[in-house]
Amino acid sequence: MQFRPYDIITAKRDGRAHTRDEIMFFIDGYTRGDIPDYQVSAWLMACFLNGLNEDETYFLTDAMLHSGSILDLKTIHKPKVDKHSTGGVGDKISLALAPAVAACGVAVPMTSGRGLGFSGGTLDKLESIPGFNVNLSEHEFVQVLKEVGYVMSGQTQTLAPADRKLYALRDVTGTVENLSLITASILSKKIAEGADSIVMDVKSGSGAFMKTLDGSRSLSHSLTQTAEKLGKKLTCIISNMGQPLGRAVGNSLEVIESIECLRGGGPDDVVDLVTILGGHMLKHAGVVESVEGGREMIQDKLRSGEALERFIHSVQRQGGAIEVVEDTERFDRAGSEVSVASQENGYVSSINTEDIGTAAIFVGAGRFTKEDAIDPSAGVNIHKKIGDSVETGEALATLHFNNRSGLERAIALIQDAYEIGKQEPAAFQLVHEVIG
Amino acid sequence: MQFRPYDIITAKRDGRAHTRDEIMFFIDGYTRGDIPDYQVSAWLMACFLNGLNEDETYFLTDAMLHSGSILDLKTIHKPKVDKHSTGGVGDKISLALAPAVAACGVAVPMTSGRGLGFSGGTLDKLESIPGFNVNLSEHEFVQVLKEVGYVMSGQTQTLAPADRKLYALRDVTGTVENLSLITASILSKKIAEGADSIVMDVKSGSGAFMKTLDGSRSLSHSLTQTAEKLGKKLTCIISNMGQPLGRAVGNSLEVIESIECLRGGGPDDVVDLVTILGGHMLKHAGVVESVEGGREMIQDKLRSGEALERFIHSVQRQGGAIEVVEDTERFDRAGSEVSVASQENGYVSSINTEDIGTAAIFVGAGRFTKEDAIDPSAGVNIHKKIGDSVETGEALATLHFNNRSGLERAIALIQDAYEIGKQEPAAFQLVHEVIG
Repeated sequence: MQFRPYDIITAKRDGRAHTRDEIMFFIDGYTRGDIPDYQVSAWLMACFLNGLNEDETYFLTDAMLHSGSILDLKTIHKPKVDKHSTGGVGDKISLALAPAVAACGVAVPMTSGRGLGFSGGTLDKLESIPGFNVNLSEHEFVQVLKEVGYVMSGQTQTLAPADRKLYALRDVTGTVENLSLITASILSKKIAEGADSIVMDVKSGSGAFMKTLDGSRSLSHSLTQTAEKLGKKLTCIISNMGQPLGRAVGNSLEVIESIECLRGGGPDDVVDLVTILGGHMLKHAGVVESVEGGREMIQDKLRSGEALERFIHSVQRQGGAIEVVEDTERFDRAGSEVSVASQENGYVSSINTEDIGTAAIFVGAGRFTKEDAIDPSAGVNIHKKIGDSVETGEALATLHFNNRSGLERAIALIQDAYEIGKQEPAAFQLVHEVIG
Repeated sequence: MQFRPYDIITAKRDGRAHTRDEIMFFIDGYTRGDIPDYQVSAWLMACFLNGLNEDETYFLTDAMLHSGSILDLKTIHKPKVDKHSTGGVGDKISLALAPAVAACGVAVPMTSGRGLGFSGGTLDKLESIPGFNVNLSEHEFVQVLKEVGYVMSGQTQTLAPADRKLYALRDVTGTVENLSLITASILSKKIAEGADSIVMDVKSGSGAFMKTLDGSRSLSHSLTQTAEKLGKKLTCIISNMGQPLGRAVGNSLEVIESIECLRGGGPDDVVDLVTILGGHMLKHAGVVESVEGGREMIQDKLRSGEALERFIHSVQRQGGAIEVVEDTERFDRAGSEVSVASQENGYVSSINTEDIGTAAIFVGAGRFTKEDAIDPSAGVNIHKKIGDSVETGEALATLHFNNRSGLERAIALIQDAYEIGKQEPAAFQLVHEVIG
């Protein structure tokens, strides 16, 4: 061996910066199984506490990116732009965004994840469409991308395998919440998907993993700097996760809301964020000159039905039941519902959005452990959002469920999540800022 | 489970202090195999970087102590005092000390270790006596202690098993050199041996793991404070490891030098340290009122042959060949020797003692990896010590070896280890201070 794992661990323990070769050696060794988990977890904790500088973050991302294959999209003769969200509550943006951007002639190769903690996952949402297959091979992934113009699938085993191993280890060793490790994890996966550039929806606020704007800004800088070193254009849109996006939280509920968007309707905030992210993607692709122009183009594709057409094509191509898309009344509905009423008059001044996400898990829309099964029809419908006036006894939200075992906890969480004030609050700002 | 390992890791990661219950849960879980290595190594690194306070160090030591059985020495109706050294070069003190203290009517239950890095190990030294068995069961350990008055053996599997697992993990994850972890490791093992009190030889200087007096002081304070919380009397003698102890470094060479001491001879520094440590042990035991009185008593036992008698009894009882003790000419000798000559006139002003220990390993007296076999006859004879005058061409040390593969490295290390000055240096101070 070129280095000793022990020396890499003690270097970081003592606050020294790693060279590219050291990081390559360590990540390659771990991916191949030559370096055991217990040495890597000690190193991860040393990284967490002593930090990785910009160069080390870049070296780490690059080593993880090259731990597996990188999708070859050369046969797709279009600009290729991907979008990634850091995770939120009611965040169904991808479902309408990807087909709309595809309808503008830009290829969108998108690998998505499962729900994690209080945040939902695109794969779980797609699986509420009966038959929809999110486990595509690399070959199928490229084929669907070619035929439909976009594709959404789970991460294949061959892309960035180091990230899969490292993420699983970080998850159980308390080393997730570190900007450099988060940056390397996100970018290694995303760049391995073969996109030319990436638009990142960096969530901020009570329903995001980054609760503060400062934290979201630091992550955005780390992401854009590292992407630049890797020769990829990346723009971060820091969006406000201070309330759920749209009115639906839960898998089939969110798909139904997305289909409303794809029909030219849907809640304003969802449509706004779809067009903003889409506008940036089209600008990245060189299809438009301004984000504003891109927003209008996306809006057109939603109104014209072209985006919906792409979506139906994708559902069909990945084995899903298009009849539920064509008639959303045919989605399975939860057997019971309970509304949570306001106990005061006033205006909604804030919503603890993580609690809304957790309430949705308590009625079955997510998982507390990896083994939990998801109830696709369960979830929360949000009736009142920030700035809305509300009267005592009026419903704030409605829980949809089949299993009532977590119902009391869910009701209490929603009750506590809402703060009602006497004054009308300042208008909710959907996007805080754009970085990169 | 009462706690989640994850929460224990993140608590230490975030600099929070652990409760006794948390530490008990974590150490018990690890000992039983419920908590995997990769979680414990992340926690160890967090402990290393964020520290453990006095209470946590005590809780950890206590949890490790109670991870296995504690030797029951109630059937031995004598004061029981143990001695431990933090490891040095040429440190054969135990070999003459334990029989001398035993000859004063104090029981010495001593478990020892193997060579570690550049430092030698008592077990390796004892095994240079043909047939000597250092792997006693708990029952045999107590029996030999009863019959001989002292016993030296390897650590049994049942005492402080948590320390064995943790030490092996620390060794490969860069988490050895932490005062709290060192304290817990030493004391959990030592207290499990059932002694009433302990005299600790804390080495300091170039041939010790603690190179600085400040480091040795901090370790001494941590050891005495933790022992006090555990209700054990412990005294630390900070001794100067700035040159090898005595003139012999290497296993049979050191046993031979120890037998010289047991015959009332031997190098002054070895005899001095034996009587100083022995004096403290006898004072702990209540056999004498002053350390000075204890020193004289030990000196008497060395001169009278009573200590040697105990040693011979121990060798016999543990299966060793007493004929080599009675006639040290019968020890196997290394086939070749090479002297390393001074290249200057002057006085020996300093000796890099770690390098001397490493040179001994290069000629076969120690191990670089766990798999290496030891050549008991190999080693170094030190002719010149600090303050000695030396002329160009005069021998500084002689290497004894059978295998010449590491000879060049060994010669270079010894050459480099010696500093020759023009002025006679200040007298070498064998003991820096006594704490506790």
